[in-house]
Amino acid sequence: MKRADNFNAGPAALPLPVLERIQAELPDYGGTGMSVMEFSHRSAEYEAIHNDAQMRLRRLLGIPDGYQVLFLQGGASLQFAMLPMNFLKPADKALYVLTGTWSQKAADEASRYGELIVDDWAKQGGYRDIPESIAGDDPSLRYVHITSNNTIYGTQWRSLPKTKAPLVADMSSDILSRPVQVEEFALIYAGAQKNIGPSGVTVVIVRDDFLATANQDVPTVLQYSTHAKANSLYNTPPTFAIYVMACVLQWVEETGGLAGIVERNRKKAAALYDVIDTHPNLYLGHAEKRARSEMNVTFRLPNDELTKLFLAEAAERGFVGVKGYRTVGGVRVSLYNAVPVEAALRFAEFMQDFARRNG
Amino acid sequence: MKRADNFNAGPAALPLPVLERIQAELPDYGGTGMSVMEFSHRSAEYEAIHNDAQMRLRRLLGIPDGYQVLFLQGGASLQFAMLPMNFLKPADKALYVLTGTWSQKAADEASRYGELIVDDWAKQGGYRDIPESIAGDDPSLRYVHITSNNTIYGTQWRSLPKTKAPLVADMSSDILSRPVQVEEFALIYAGAQKNIGPSGVTVVIVRDDFLATANQDVPTVLQYSTHAKANSLYNTPPTFAIYVMACVLQWVEETGGLAGIVERNRKKAAALYDVIDTHPNLYLGHAEKRARSEMNVTFRLPNDELTKLFLAEAAERGFVGVKGYRTVGGVRVSLYNAVPVEAALRFAEFMQDFARRNG
Ligand SMILES: Cc1ncc(COP(=O)(O)O)c(C=O)c1O
Ligand SMILES: Cc1ncc(COP(=O)(O)O)c(C=O)c1O
Ligand SMILES: [Mg+2]
Ligand SMILES: [Mg+2]
Ligand SMILES: [Mg+2]
Ligand SMILES: [Mg+2]
Repeated sequence: MKRADNFNAGPAALPLPVLERIQAELPDYGGTGMSVMEFSHRSAEYEAIHNDAQMRLRRLLGIPDGYQVLFLQGGASLQFAMLPMNFLKPADKALYVLTGTWSQKAADEASRYGELIVDDWAKQGGYRDIPESIAGDDPSLRYVHITSNNTIYGTQWRSLPKTKAPLVADMSSDILSRPVQVEEFALIYAGAQKNIGPSGVTVVIVRDDFLATANQDVPTVLQYSTHAKANSLYNTPPTFAIYVMACVLQWVEETGGLAGIVERNRKKAAALYDVIDTHPNLYLGHAEKRARSEMNVTFRLPNDELTKLFLAEAAERGFVGVKGYRTVGGVRVSLYNAVPVEAALRFAEFMQDFARRNG
Repeated sequence: MKRADNFNAGPAALPLPVLERIQAELPDYGGTGMSVMEFSHRSAEYEAIHNDAQMRLRRLLGIPDGYQVLFLQGGASLQFAMLPMNFLKPADKALYVLTGTWSQKAADEASRYGELIVDDWAKQGGYRDIPESIAGDDPSLRYVHITSNNTIYGTQWRSLPKTKAPLVADMSSDILSRPVQVEEFALIYAGAQKNIGPSGVTVVIVRDDFLATANQDVPTVLQYSTHAKANSLYNTPPTFAIYVMACVLQWVEETGGLAGIVERNRKKAAALYDVIDTHPNLYLGHAEKRARSEMNVTFRLPNDELTKLFLAEAAERGFVGVKGYRTVGGVRVSLYNAVPVEAALRFAEFMQDFARRNG
């Protein structure tokens, strides 16, 4: 079997050893005569997997006591709504920092529930940069919302802000790609399908004292506290997706942990950005250098014809998923945790080769 | 490998050929060099699977034109909230027919949004029976909500009601177990994890003209119309769960279709109910005969000691998942589509043997 060089933006590449393990554990998990998909979510077998996933995430991210780790459904898009449902009332103010399409969507949903203050500095600049500072210390703010990595535009908070108001981050596209001081955050959410698993499960990390301030008049299944009280077993969780996530987290621990990830991610991103910087007239990077994402490398070529040619040649050589997001075009190469260094090096080599021929 | 006789209430048994196919298609689906989990939800490969699942469900259930088939996340529990969010306003009335724990939960959520009229006839009788008729023709009703099969109590609408008001059904625990006149319903919802797939995906079937009457002031991701317009690709769907569902639906089509299912389900349920009826003083069936579920067979033994002994022996013989729901106790044997006839016959034989020794 030839593995594809898969640069999908999410769902995305998973580690081959994880896929092989899942395969080996089908149809019979550990001699039970059942697959994980067939376990009751109330069974000892499943609960062990569920708690294992949680524990590994706590360990890898250094999640302190006093934080809940929840496994929910509905994707980050449901979090765009759940967050303000739980934490905004009409008279409440929240600050949303607009750094890309997803933060805009998060703000749009929140505006149904409270009074939004919007930092649109990055938006005004075409989403190429990340603000150096934000007005997040105002004690009247219910919370401050940021998107740590902007999947579509390829920008990233290289250093995460600190705020006196409770800080909330959508980390969908860079969770577990680098160390994060969880204690600086009131709530973190992330769809699993980029860095830590398949689609179908969303991780929420929430501080108990923030959770305690949540609104009460929210549908039961949309209250964070419902899931916190039930260890994410209030209703049937996406058991198989959580199992795959547990396998991915174990793989991370067995391949150098977060330090190993950081080193590999740095290499992958550097390989591509180096080619961009060597051919600045051919590869027009979208992000300002200081705001470059290590997860999503975005650029265009000088004209649509060359961009098309580049994408066609990339596809021909078997590179998967490098077409830019449908609303913005260009090229986007996603380099999440499970993308091998060699795949990134092969793509960088292709970029160099393309430059030699078209530079 | 010895397969377990798996009578879990959900997540539940899946067909062995489906598990073997999933195994064979890991880590490389159809020579793509990727697993299904690694496909972008915007890729041609994934969209083919997505549309295949939809088409098979349409075919098997005879879903007419003018209905949308949606694949959502959040389980049936999220539907308890989404339904009234989309279709109730404070002055609206809806009729909820209480036939078990799940219909009560559905009603509880709806009561946040509109004025509920509750039919508690079955509840008054300890959830042993299903009403013979309901007051569902009142034109002032926004909708009527029923639970077609009561997973916990083991009762089922043997013949589904017809109403002049829009009829909504939670079919989580009997979808695709028998023919249903979809055109009698305004909306049907069902978590996949009992009869048609793994947990993590919820099917919603909704009539266009009903959908057109939905409330507008609902979070985007919680509007049915959002998903209808986007062919359930508004945000990242639970791609792998949908793939497994597609495999299950194909298996159904290849093993006699709905007619084959109906025949096997009848045999399985008859085998158990026959033993109950032969030993009415040992096996105290919960449901009135006319309301017996073909999906979940529920009974107790004359005292807690015997029930305990029965459950211990069942576990010892390798029967999985037959303990009654935590809030009601007793025995519950779930006989969803993927449970082989032979497994049910083995359990019936065990019941007979137990009766010989303890009758
Ligand atoms: C940063 C970010 N937030 C939110 C989303 C939406 O996630 P989902 O599709 O799980 O709703 C995405 C998806 O790409 C994302 O990259
Ligand atoms: C009839 C019925 N409705 C709703 C539910 C809740 O489903 P979920 O756990 O997917 O939210 C169940 C679960 O067993 C059920 O049987
Ligand atoms: Mg973005
Ligand atoms: Mg994206
Ligand atoms: Mg019930
Ligand atoms: Mg149940």
